[in-house]
Amino acid sequence: MSHPHNTNPSRRALLKQGAALAAGVGGLMVAGPTIAAPRATPAPKFDEIFDIIVVGSGFAGMSAAVQAAEEGDKVLVIDKMPVFGGNSTINGGAMAVAGSDHQAKAGIEDSVELMVSDMLTSGRGMNDVEMLKLVCDGTAESARWLESYGTVWKPFVQHFGGHSLPRVLQTRESSGAGIIRPLIAAAKKAGVTMYKQTKLIEFVQDGQQRVVGVKVKSGYFFPKEKSGSDKLLGARKGVIMATGGFGRDIPFRQMQQPRLTSELDSTNHPGANADALKQMMLIGANPIHLDQIQLGPWSSPDEKGFGTASQFNTAATYQNGIVVDVRTGERFFNELADRKARAEAIMTRRDDQGQPVYPIGFTNEKGAAKAQTLEWGLKYDVIKKADTLDDLAGLYGIPADKLKAQVAQWNQFVRDGEDKQFGRPLMQAFELTEGPWYAVRMWPKVHYCMGGVRVNTHSQVLHLISDKPIAGLYAAGEATGGIHGASRLGACAVAEGVVTGRNAARSAVKADALSLKLA
Amino acid sequence: MSHPHNTNPSRRALLKQGAALAAGVGGLMVAGPTIAAPRATPAPKFDEIFDIIVVGSGFAGMSAAVQAAEEGDKVLVIDKMPVFGGNSTINGGAMAVAGSDHQAKAGIEDSVELMVSDMLTSGRGMNDVEMLKLVCDGTAESARWLESYGTVWKPFVQHFGGHSLPRVLQTRESSGAGIIRPLIAAAKKAGVTMYKQTKLIEFVQDGQQRVVGVKVKSGYFFPKEKSGSDKLLGARKGVIMATGGFGRDIPFRQMQQPRLTSELDSTNHPGANADALKQMMLIGANPIHLDQIQLGPWSSPDEKGFGTASQFNTAATYQNGIVVDVRTGERFFNELADRKARAEAIMTRRDDQGQPVYPIGFTNEKGAAKAQTLEWGLKYDVIKKADTLDDLAGLYGIPADKLKAQVAQWNQFVRDGEDKQFGRPLMQAFELTEGPWYAVRMWPKVHYCMGGVRVNTHSQVLHLISDKPIAGLYAAGEATGGIHGASRLGACAVAEGVVTGRNAARSAVKADALSLKLA
Repeated sequence: MSHPHNTNPSRRALLKQGAALAAGVGGLMVAGPTIAAPRATPAPKFDEIFDIIVVGSGFAGMSAAVQAAEEGDKVLVIDKMPVFGGNSTINGGAMAVAGSDHQAKAGIEDSVELMVSDMLTSGRGMNDVEMLKLVCDGTAESARWLESYGTVWKPFVQHFGGHSLPRVLQTRESSGAGIIRPLIAAAKKAGVTMYKQTKLIEFVQDGQQRVVGVKVKSGYFFPKEKSGSDKLLGARKGVIMATGGFGRDIPFRQMQQPRLTSELDSTNHPGANADALKQMMLIGANPIHLDQIQLGPWSSPDEKGFGTASQFNTAATYQNGIVVDVRTGERFFNELADRKARAEAIMTRRDDQGQPVYPIGFTNEKGAAKAQTLEWGLKYDVIKKADTLDDLAGLYGIPADKLKAQVAQWNQFVRDGEDKQFGRPLMQAFELTEGPWYAVRMWPKVHYCMGGVRVNTHSQVLHLISDKPIAGLYAAGEATGGIHGASRLGACAVAEGVVTGRNAARSAVKADALSLKLA
Repeated sequence: MSHPHNTNPSRRALLKQGAALAAGVGGLMVAGPTIAAPRATPAPKFDEIFDIIVVGSGFAGMSAAVQAAEEGDKVLVIDKMPVFGGNSTINGGAMAVAGSDHQAKAGIEDSVELMVSDMLTSGRGMNDVEMLKLVCDGTAESARWLESYGTVWKPFVQHFGGHSLPRVLQTRESSGAGIIRPLIAAAKKAGVTMYKQTKLIEFVQDGQQRVVGVKVKSGYFFPKEKSGSDKLLGARKGVIMATGGFGRDIPFRQMQQPRLTSELDSTNHPGANADALKQMMLIGANPIHLDQIQLGPWSSPDEKGFGTASQFNTAATYQNGIVVDVRTGERFFNELADRKARAEAIMTRRDDQGQPVYPIGFTNEKGAAKAQTLEWGLKYDVIKKADTLDDLAGLYGIPADKLKAQVAQWNQFVRDGEDKQFGRPLMQAFELTEGPWYAVRMWPKVHYCMGGVRVNTHSQVLHLISDKPIAGLYAAGEATGGIHGASRLGACAVAEGVVTGRNAARSAVKADALSLKLA
């Protein structure tokens, strides 16, 4: 065959037998081209049957699984990787919440409407507003729901870029693992079955095109596509796709954004590819905003992946420090702008040959107090320490007088309560008066896919033609498209994952249960 | 059935017979869910058979048809509308050409590389560079090819926004009809069959998933989806999709860009919807950049559609005049920037309630000399005439002293050879010294879809999974995605349509011809 084709397992098997089968059942064999046609065939015998199958075990997947199990359903979670959690365990574990107890304690008046408005601004108006409202509206309750399973938030609330006020909660561990681990424990306690190294190969659909299960490779060993053995898993109520983005799928991301070559690093885990997205598209899912791929503005070229700099810059330099061009010692953007604005600003720093001139972000001891990766960053030489601004300038070849002038100007802005250079909000800002200083070189990395499949507010995947649900198919988290528009705000992926994962589960739980047959 | 499904004609017919058929051929009828599966069935009997079927009759479709017929193939062109030509007859008929005879005569040194570079800049680096080179490289030869069929270019070359020098040829008629009419005549002379009111419903694929024809509604009357009768048309070598964009498909464009509501007008013809794109996606075509939808920056809110202002602004105010904010009398962008930059600049002009404050573009008698729609625009009161700048200011409520100061400043820039405000290229600029003045209010309209299906340099549509060609399926023109990236430059759609249409035809002509059967 000259190219792969869009079939479900039994279709593919039958295609292979092709003419023989046709001849066998009705003597219809003909010469020349033939037309592939569906027919009613026996229901497959499934190796195992569940009410709900969740594909993926990150924030969205684990939230869906726990929610569905809480409501009494028999749930399976599969993940193709040898560990659970995907990208959700290798990020900062920060969740934007509108109206948290933490905000109330800090005297910060927030609202769902304000969070929606911030996300719309960052999304350049491309957001699916109904889904966006659903997410923002669910954050406060979902943050408490996570706490009830054991997530512990730091006692303070943070001000991330693009948010108009401090609204970010962060796990005690500064890692999404502080959410995933408790959810996995809760899932196991609630009787959820969890299979790792189990990769979705194709959907199984019935004669009415309802998704009734998945064909998987069991014992799959990423990235060996031929590893593992076939299994058919039945889902009486539906399949929830919590399969994340494709930030590490270099060919696929380059089809949409040719500049995102292999030379640009990514914060994602190696399995973050487009395989699951493609399977959804093959059965009619409608892809939205696939070319909107976020670059994280807080990463460092001096280490691989998410590393130590991302958390350091998020918690320290962006909130409590400044970022300067090493050639001039001058700031060149609002350090609390949204990610797209910051990443694009950083990537303008190039020499005459177009090669990156990495800017540095820095803060002092007080500013770095809440950065949990400081020690590791220093150890790996990603973060550098300098006692004085002169020393700092020397480390990076910055004109010392200009650097000192910039810091003095910044301090004046803080005293005046207004950033006259770039309009940065100064609610939590303080003057940078004394060392030691901590600095890191910065360059963006591929971080998050705003694009994905179109869903409705019941988290049902909508069909390209009808814009009505593909029966039995739900999606949540990064696998969906449209919520964030052109640029996701920081800490809104955890919010989206948890809220939409639970939303998908609530919808699937209510679906009619089909009667499927075991092998 | 709860939602439409992805089937070809015979699959759909068989689905309807469902269980009955299964029982009939093999006694396999079962209770409960069943799995749709393909099987080898008799080849369909086609109502008519051609070598190549071209869907769409704009620049790409007609170029493909003429090219294929020139090479001796039996060609059918279908168009769903009651007239041929689609958007290609309701635009300015301007074609960007690198290295034209017109440029040589005017002493303008251009190159394919420079045109590629201009388009990459406008496309924000999102362009498919190989396809882009193919298009630019083919422009000079294709412009002569059009001439050979009767297209007559104006004797001068124009400087459109975003191009770094004058390279735009325009038909004598200032309309794409000056290209489409000669091509239709050439097609008919070469024996091409042409059916209008014939809508593609689905592709017909053989057992190897090769596209072998199309199911159409013959006698279709747009937009009545139930009009017309079914026909199966066979294509021994392949189907070329020259089906344009979806600028008038309000639900579909809003899925990607919620702001493009029905309140935003479009320059496109009413049939410019996503139906054909969706059919390609259903058989595995890979959609690229669907959210990149261009707003034309030269249209007027004072008339519907492309109207008279678009040509006037393109040929007159943008090349030979200036655009000002009516509240200040001041310019606010480079009038020769690319379309995205200009449209976005214009759409920043809003009042406190966010309502548009339409800027005006204006020039004088000399500047308007080449605008063929001037007379009509004046007649319909879209273009207004004023003898003096004071009168002009009075017409639009502009502070007269400020308007005069802006014109004086502009004239100084022209004398200095440098636009110190916005860096506009001044190669063809002249001072605006005397009236009468001609002005038009401006607001963007939905104009062009940069997005579409992914193709290779043989114009073969590539499959989502394999990134290899879907056998028998070609695409050209606006139906494809990636060539223009984030923003198409003016006059590059004609270039793309003609060059890629011919390219698709050359590829399809070389394909093996299947032996298909007539009914």
